[in-house]
Amino acid sequence: MHYEHRIVLGMSSVDRAGVLFYPELFRHAHDVYEAFMASIGADLTAMLDAPGHVLPVVHAEADYYLPMRHGQIYTVRVSVADIGETSFAVHCDFLGPNGRLYSQVRSTQVCLNTRDGAPRALPYELRAKLTRCKAQQGRIQA
Amino acid sequence: MHYEHRIVLGMSSVDRAGVLFYPELFRHAHDVYEAFMASIGADLTAMLDAPGHVLPVVHAEADYYLPMRHGQIYTVRVSVADIGETSFAVHCDFLGPNGRLYSQVRSTQVCLNTRDGAPRALPYELRAKLTRCKAQQGRIQA
Amino acid sequence: MHYEHRIVLGMSSVDRAGVLFYPELFRHAHDVYEAFMASIGADLTAMLDAPGHVLPVVHAEADYYLPMRHGQIYTVRVSVADIGETSFAVHCDFLGPNGRLYSQVRSTQVCLNTRDGAPRALPYELRAKLTRCKAQQGRIQA
Amino acid sequence: MHYEHRIVLGMSSVDRAGVLFYPELFRHAHDVYEAFMASIGADLTAMLDAPGHVLPVVHAEADYYLPMRHGQIYTVRVSVADIGETSFAVHCDFLGPNGRLYSQVRSTQVCLNTRDGAPRALPYELRAKLTRCKAQQGRIQA
Repeated sequence: MHYEHRIVLGMSSVDRAGVLFYPELFRHAHDVYEAFMASIGADLTAMLDAPGHVLPVVHAEADYYLPMRHGQIYTVRVSVADIGETSFAVHCDFLGPNGRLYSQVRSTQVCLNTRDGAPRALPYELRAKLTRCKAQQGRIQA
Repeated sequence: MHYEHRIVLGMSSVDRAGVLFYPELFRHAHDVYEAFMASIGADLTAMLDAPGHVLPVVHAEADYYLPMRHGQIYTVRVSVADIGETSFAVHCDFLGPNGRLYSQVRSTQVCLNTRDGAPRALPYELRAKLTRCKAQQGRIQA
Repeated sequence: MHYEHRIVLGMSSVDRAGVLFYPELFRHAHDVYEAFMASIGADLTAMLDAPGHVLPVVHAEADYYLPMRHGQIYTVRVSVADIGETSFAVHCDFLGPNGRLYSQVRSTQVCLNTRDGAPRALPYELRAKLTRCKAQQGRIQA
Repeated sequence: MHYEHRIVLGMSSVDRAGVLFYPELFRHAHDVYEAFMASIGADLTAMLDAPGHVLPVVHAEADYYLPMRHGQIYTVRVSVADIGETSFAVHCDFLGPNGRLYSQVRSTQVCLNTRDGAPRALPYELRAKLTRCKAQQGRIQA
């Protein structure tokens, strides 16, 4: 029961070799992350319109296992990986039509007060939503 | 009977005001143009893999009528606007949930020989596909 | 006496053919436009930090005359083209090492009140700066 | 004796809060990486024009220490971090006007035969250039 999103790799995302231009993977991962957050009722637009806290990315990394090519379709599978006191991590797996893992993005978001930029505990509701999400992943994978 | 595609305006496409960063509209238009071309059987990937001709954009323009905002959903409606001897124009209308026109991108693609970069007549099949597309639009709009 | 800015066309800006991906030209034009505005003392950051008015692009267009290639250096020459009551237009010429015109971006910015989004007269100071800029271009070109 | 490059954070690179949109850091890092490689005589354009090997990124990661803001100037300092049999790592430090470290990108490039996509030893010349670069960094830092 992971959140999944389909993308097509357009010309805007490939380099001269017709293969993914690597920074573009993070862009796609962020688009899917936004959609995922909206799907669990943690809409980033609403958060930004009525700020109190923000969730900037403090660490991001990606592994590129197989070449992703122009015009190909990928399924992006989102997992909640870690839930800390003030931060949480999300993984985006990019899967090919054959189910193989082409690449993975891992990002860590930290919760900061809008006013002073200091880290703060994740809001109770957000933590609850992420925790439910993580538990469901576990049940399904088992 | 226009080709249509749904997009969500992510953080990657907006500026500091939460409103579309204007160059991003062309990026979205190109993504949709690629999907449109594939839908009529004129796959750009195939074209580039077995080149003989290319279809670079020689002119592009956009009008921004209403502010497009972060998190909003838009329908992109594609029309074939003009079919010339060596070129064709495509329009992408970006429509809000209410059906209102938020913005429009118009691009002109010209057909060039891969070998010498000289303009050449549109391939017969491509012209036929675009013409059929244009005729269908006409019938439906009437 | 035009404002000029040098760019190198990186992998991030080219397509599978090693040639400019057309939406990227607008991105480069905007980067240079920001630098130009700062150079005449009309810093967009300051404008956005203390808003009263904004200057969204309502129309943008580009002509692509010659293929711009990966790794090549271009000089972007900025001109103030038109100064209206509530709007102004800027041209960015992309020139090759040989001085030839490879492409041109033309954008129209309109001045809106931040509060209600209604068009308003260009601020007196901004108009004066743009007018001075336009006059200097004229003198030099003559 | 590190290679350094100055960037200005334009509207194209920031999010709704006026702060760096995180995937953009990788884009800037790649632009600077290309300039660095050209500076040591390992021009990526030439490499791609006459292929024999390619250098795709297989891992990339970034830490975001301090908020990078619209309109601010940063110095990007490049270091060669590791030189392996078939791969090498590059670090890009993004430094503020005060010399403080705002963020860091680390990327690992692996050398592949163009023909079959298999890993191969780094070309002798490229290894020599990277090694010289790494040694100079060491001398200077000491």
